[in-house]
Amino acid sequence: MTEEAAEAMTIKGALKQAIIEQFGTPCAVVDLDVVDRNIAKLQSLCDAAGLANRPHIKTHKSPFLAQRQMAAGAIGITCQKLGEAEIMAAAGITDILIATNILGAARSGRLAALQRQTPLKLCADNPVSLAAYSRAGQTADRPVTVLIECDTGRKRAGVETAGEAVALAKIIRDDPWLEFGGLMFYPPRDGWPATQAFLDTTRQGLADLGLTPQIISTGGTPNLVNLGQLDGATEHRAGTSIFNDRMMMQAGVAEMADCALTIFTSVVSRAGPARGILDAGSKTFTSDTGGLEGFGHILEYPNARIHDMAEEHGFLDLSACETRPDVGEILKVIPNHVCVAVNMFDQLVAVRGDSISDVLSVAARGKLV
Amino acid sequence: MTEEAAEAMTIKGALKQAIIEQFGTPCAVVDLDVVDRNIAKLQSLCDAAGLANRPHIKTHKSPFLAQRQMAAGAIGITCQKLGEAEIMAAAGITDILIATNILGAARSGRLAALQRQTPLKLCADNPVSLAAYSRAGQTADRPVTVLIECDTGRKRAGVETAGEAVALAKIIRDDPWLEFGGLMFYPPRDGWPATQAFLDTTRQGLADLGLTPQIISTGGTPNLVNLGQLDGATEHRAGTSIFNDRMMMQAGVAEMADCALTIFTSVVSRAGPARGILDAGSKTFTSDTGGLEGFGHILEYPNARIHDMAEEHGFLDLSACETRPDVGEILKVIPNHVCVAVNMFDQLVAVRGDSISDVLSVAARGKLV
Repeated sequence: MTEEAAEAMTIKGALKQAIIEQFGTPCAVVDLDVVDRNIAKLQSLCDAAGLANRPHIKTHKSPFLAQRQMAAGAIGITCQKLGEAEIMAAAGITDILIATNILGAARSGRLAALQRQTPLKLCADNPVSLAAYSRAGQTADRPVTVLIECDTGRKRAGVETAGEAVALAKIIRDDPWLEFGGLMFYPPRDGWPATQAFLDTTRQGLADLGLTPQIISTGGTPNLVNLGQLDGATEHRAGTSIFNDRMMMQAGVAEMADCALTIFTSVVSRAGPARGILDAGSKTFTSDTGGLEGFGHILEYPNARIHDMAEEHGFLDLSACETRPDVGEILKVIPNHVCVAVNMFDQLVAVRGDSISDVLSVAARGKLV
Repeated sequence: MTEEAAEAMTIKGALKQAIIEQFGTPCAVVDLDVVDRNIAKLQSLCDAAGLANRPHIKTHKSPFLAQRQMAAGAIGITCQKLGEAEIMAAAGITDILIATNILGAARSGRLAALQRQTPLKLCADNPVSLAAYSRAGQTADRPVTVLIECDTGRKRAGVETAGEAVALAKIIRDDPWLEFGGLMFYPPRDGWPATQAFLDTTRQGLADLGLTPQIISTGGTPNLVNLGQLDGATEHRAGTSIFNDRMMMQAGVAEMADCALTIFTSVVSRAGPARGILDAGSKTFTSDTGGLEGFGHILEYPNARIHDMAEEHGFLDLSACETRPDVGEILKVIPNHVCVAVNMFDQLVAVRGDSISDVLSVAARGKLV
């Protein structure tokens, strides 16, 4: 056996061999067959509930995948940052909701510039954001559509009472550069009855102002189990479901076979008999645990534990493994939180079966503003 | 007062106003006066201990700052990934140590390509890495200098015994495409006596092989307090000291005035009286806590706590604050772990005093292979 053949056996598998020769490790690999299935499943869940599908692109940040979601029936997309929206607008997507207060982008002038190019849907939970959006609309000479962000238990952003929501709606109604678009919710998984009560009360107050919300938006992949439970909802925003991860498996909304993205990583050290080191650490996976034990699930060695991370080292505890990986072996890891892991890569290697089919740019990565 | 003047008052301060107008928020800002002081301090600590200074560029990933470190007297630099070394070599830096086993880059052919361009110093703790480096040296037609990575308590990568180190040195000695460069340590802060014992034993074994280590390298900013305590050490690798952060303050090796990098972030929501939301979450700061309480120190509101993070939201607990920030106010935050936070940005805004002086590319960001 030649040295090269011996090395190929260490690497184990033709796809792993191809990945490391073309891209090295660590490498983020997406299975497009699983992606397509996940996109279709999300669309059919929304269809069945009579809801428009507005997937959140924060998970993949890829125009290619956003266009695939649109082609499958999505009405538009959700972004979390103006910089993401700029990338997606440049890729030809025209119905974009930015699902957070964006003061930094507004004050830098970039919001007005994009609004001039394509009419955006923004959200706000306070009058300062509304004033910034109004100025952007005026600069762009095109009114901005605004959804009011409402909090029904998550204690993140969002007004906490129907009265505040209605007060903001009145400001929007009375501002020539703003248009009232509706209400945005991100209900806790068990917070849908509270969301219904909030919505019903708010709707009455809006009616007194002569306003009807065109959009009632809900969000979250774990909330896919709740679709149809909010009377009046018009659309849903799910992000993670395109790839899934350990957190989604833990939440009971995905199986292992639904996890479309794995990180290929090399075992680079086996300095102790029961331990090893991966060439991927917190600058690859991030330190998000998502409340789970360990930092990822290793497909080839399910009993191995990634128990700690340095910036470029993953610490393996192999004590529970009957067979243990050798130095040089490539392992496929399902990350705990795929959205933040994707955000560490400039590109995703797309495969179908055992073949590399494409390289996708994570074009909206690092768009922090 | 005009609306713009009122807004400027909300933002508070001319530099904040300039930052948000040019760059938006969140924005990573480095004070070059503090950076210069930190660079000079590291150099003088190494000089005083009779050690060469080989700063680790993982913290800043900026050729501009690496060149500044070289100009201040550094003998060369340390990288953690081949991709980082490629960027630094392209910027004209010729003495580069890559401080980890790099199998992915070796097998992709990129190691050989860079080795052909500039002679690298690599490290290894196992024969598989050595075989990969040898092949790269042969392909490049230039032997690779290898340091043996030795573990003296951290249980990361690195051989655990002097015997293993000597065995690897023999492989290097007997391979025409490898050259023995020395030993690399990353001692735990209290592990310097153990490191001395390891070094002394290994040195004897090396002498029996006819080998003398040219480089005995130690690392770590917290270990700056230990410089001079390893008899035979020739150089030190410190990364974080160029910027410092909350972890370094906690470790007792930096004061607040030594923290050169802050993240400017906007308060975008105040939906509850004792809470607020920043426009910077785990995709800006990462989830690294470094064992500290909260995710950053807010200079303007030291009693505010960033108690949780979503991807693009920082959750503020303001209950301990007598005065509380308004929506739209910009806050300067010292991150817990600056190395991973910098890695989320494509650029750093450099200031001197209250003026923006430069925009530095984080050129080696995202170089995972």
